Amino acid sequence: MKKVLIANRGEIAVRIIRACRELNLPTVAVYSTADRAALHVQLADQSICIGPAAATESYLNQSALITAAKLTGADAIHPGYGFLSENAEFARQCQDAGLNFIGPDPAVIELMGEKAAARQTMTAAGMPVTPGSPSEFTTATAGLAAAQKIGFPVMLKASAGGGGKGMRVINQASQFEHEFSLAQNEAVKAFGSKQMYLEKYLAKPRHIEVQILADQAGTVWAVGERDCTIQQHHQKVIEEAPAECLTASTREKLLDTARIAAKKLHYTGAGTMEFLLADPTHFYFMEMNTRIQVEHPITELTSGIDLVKWQLKIAAGEKLPPALPHPLAGFALECRINAQTAGQITGLHLPGGWGIRVDTAIYQGYLIPPNYDAMIAKIIAYGSDRQTVIQRMKMALDETVISGINTNLDFLLQLLTEPDYLQLKADINWLDQLTQTN
Amino acid sequence: MKKVLIANRGEIAVRIIRACRELNLPTVAVYSTADRAALHVQLADQSICIGPAAATESYLNQSALITAAKLTGADAIHPGYGFLSENAEFARQCQDAGLNFIGPDPAVIELMGEKAAARQTMTAAGMPVTPGSPSEFTTATAGLAAAQKIGFPVMLKASAGGGGKGMRVINQASQFEHEFSLAQNEAVKAFGSKQMYLEKYLAKPRHIEVQILADQAGTVWAVGERDCTIQQHHQKVIEEAPAECLTASTREKLLDTARIAAKKLHYTGAGTMEFLLADPTHFYFMEMNTRIQVEHPITELTSGIDLVKWQLKIAAGEKLPPALPHPLAGFALECRINAQTAGQITGLHLPGGWGIRVDTAIYQGYLIPPNYDAMIAKIIAYGSDRQTVIQRMKMALDETVISGINTNLDFLLQLLTEPDYLQLKADINWLDQLTQTN
Repeated sequence: MKKVLIANRGEIAVRIIRACRELNLPTVAVYSTADRAALHVQLADQSICIGPAAATESYLNQSALITAAKLTGADAIHPGYGFLSENAEFARQCQDAGLNFIGPDPAVIELMGEKAAARQTMTAAGMPVTPGSPSEFTTATAGLAAAQKIGFPVMLKASAGGGGKGMRVINQASQFEHEFSLAQNEAVKAFGSKQMYLEKYLAKPRHIEVQILADQAGTVWAVGERDCTIQQHHQKVIEEAPAECLTASTREKLLDTARIAAKKLHYTGAGTMEFLLADPTHFYFMEMNTRIQVEHPITELTSGIDLVKWQLKIAAGEKLPPALPHPLAGFALECRINAQTAGQITGLHLPGGWGIRVDTAIYQGYLIPPNYDAMIAKIIAYGSDRQTVIQRMKMALDETVISGINTNLDFLLQLLTEPDYLQLKADINWLDQLTQTN
Repeated sequence: MKKVLIANRGEIAVRIIRACRELNLPTVAVYSTADRAALHVQLADQSICIGPAAATESYLNQSALITAAKLTGADAIHPGYGFLSENAEFARQCQDAGLNFIGPDPAVIELMGEKAAARQTMTAAGMPVTPGSPSEFTTATAGLAAAQKIGFPVMLKASAGGGGKGMRVINQASQFEHEFSLAQNEAVKAFGSKQMYLEKYLAKPRHIEVQILADQAGTVWAVGERDCTIQQHHQKVIEEAPAECLTASTREKLLDTARIAAKKLHYTGAGTMEFLLADPTHFYFMEMNTRIQVEHPITELTSGIDLVKWQLKIAAGEKLPPALPHPLAGFALECRINAQTAGQITGLHLPGGWGIRVDTAIYQGYLIPPNYDAMIAKIIAYGSDRQTVIQRMKMALDETVISGINTNLDFLLQLLTEPDYLQLKADINWLDQLTQTN
């Protein structure tokens, strides 16, 4: 590997440039016309404009990116997260153009991108997935038999469904027939179909995920897990490592299961398996993200493993040691700082000191373009234990000054004082319910 | 402990405020009229002006500080480093005023402040100090006998000396008589005294120091060592932990010796024992600093111990666990960023991300007053090994932008590429020689 083009922007582009520089790899930044003054452009060794502000014409423009790599002599492309990072077609086009796409094999990206196929593959690889009825049914009798096999509570769904129509949570067998007929009637009215199916209903699941790192020689690491339960509109807001809601034996089983499945997949590079945790001892596979994730720093801080550097090294053919060099230690917490308005940052003070890491691409005077993701910084706190780290994060958020735009700093500070959050009582719907109520 | 007044300014005041906030301790910042807009004033819960710009009338003004504590209801004073941090009289005045001075007993501060008495005490505590002639002498015969006992090379010095007059390095016995007469003649001319004495001459010593942390119940930790050999005009420029020039057995002996001596001293709080390392296996006590040191973050990163928080907890009566909770791990490097001119910081971009800690009190728009120390920021890099961390630091320095004033950023970047530095071949005089030559 001689030169890396970073097919991304913002903090992750800066993160990747830093990892490349540590490996003495020259970097090429790409930018849209809205990002001429962006930090990643200033930090890279070279930069090249790839199109207008609209992402579809720049950061999602596959041929522009491949041309940019050719023009600048880059022989590898790091896709970051979002944009084209999970686009199997782009990964293939890179390969066809003789470029090293930093990620797993395009076939694996494709497989994991089709959620139903991914669930099947993972089930075959020994992974627990949310139990469901093996086939569709049209009678209450057949449905009840399936429900009893899965175990109550169950979620009854219309096969042709969507938007909540024909959906019912059923808590016990005695309610089944009644609820079934109501739901099926709804389904017939809404979609003209009597076909129904069942899934295990997880009442208050938490979102737990496992960081995978795997080399081309077949060594696979499960670099610990993360708890990303605190979500708003399906966007993660606060992430933690380790997931303290897990029992020790469940954690071990979770990490083992994920590692073994990744090995069966012949996975390479960094990836994340996402799970729903029904209770402290039961987890179910949801999906796998075949890229680096926003919340990777909390795993880096608790493992001492530089994930982005390893992505690059693995793509260059380097082998992982047989096992993690250090045991996982400490506790890390990430808060995503979002801009709630576009505009210029007129004043900026970011936190620092002991146990604080900031990953960002903003600076004082920076004009936030309205075209891209709202996340402008990640504040990450690390320390010996959850309580200490939450306190450190509160201090760091309190210390942060971002003037000229609106941000979610105060909202995050408030969140960190919520008893449900502090006592690990939240589930993935908690924050949406909380913000709806208030 | 209810409220802490921080008798300092700049990055160390910010560092202490952060530690207090993590412990839910309210803080009082003090400031001179030149520091009205300083960051520590903005971050503290309360602030109070203690006098004009000149440090003698503000940060060194003992009665103003004690009055400020009384006025604001603070019951403890953290002195930071520099200013009054090693002033036994101030520590006593605090005690007399019913204030908890965060540091060791005033008697210990006083003892360690008198360098000759400290050396005697430390010798008695079993610490190796640079060997010297037991008494002064006036004849070459007596001098040679003493020199042979110490072992060549020796440094011959005039008792009344100073400024290098009457000083000679003597490498072997055959040169002694000749060099002695030259030196004594110089001494007589310069100071009117024939009295001479000898010290072991350390040709190319390195500066190694041990971080001590001790509680009131007698538990003493040696929290690893630091290598602070890279100095300019006796000011440390780059600091590292651990000191890779040490053999494992010497490191163990050094840490043990320091810990045992601190225990004999009944030391409490954070302190540092400074040593000269003659070769990888021989070290000699120089002096002890009875306060937190500028370079404490590199020890924090390699030990996982929050030294400033422990200073506060120890002063409040909390006990240390019997031993360090984690083994020392990784490598940390600190570069001191100095302002070479006073003035306003018109543009600022500080580095961040994986393995980078910044301790600073500057911000964009901040006007650096000409009255105080030139150090405006500490950039600290942490990682698995020295080579990785040096590379990370180069990247961090390269990324840093401080506009409007001159700084030593480029000088530091150049230093990190010097073969003697990289190969641990420098001694405490190396940088002065290097900069003289260039």
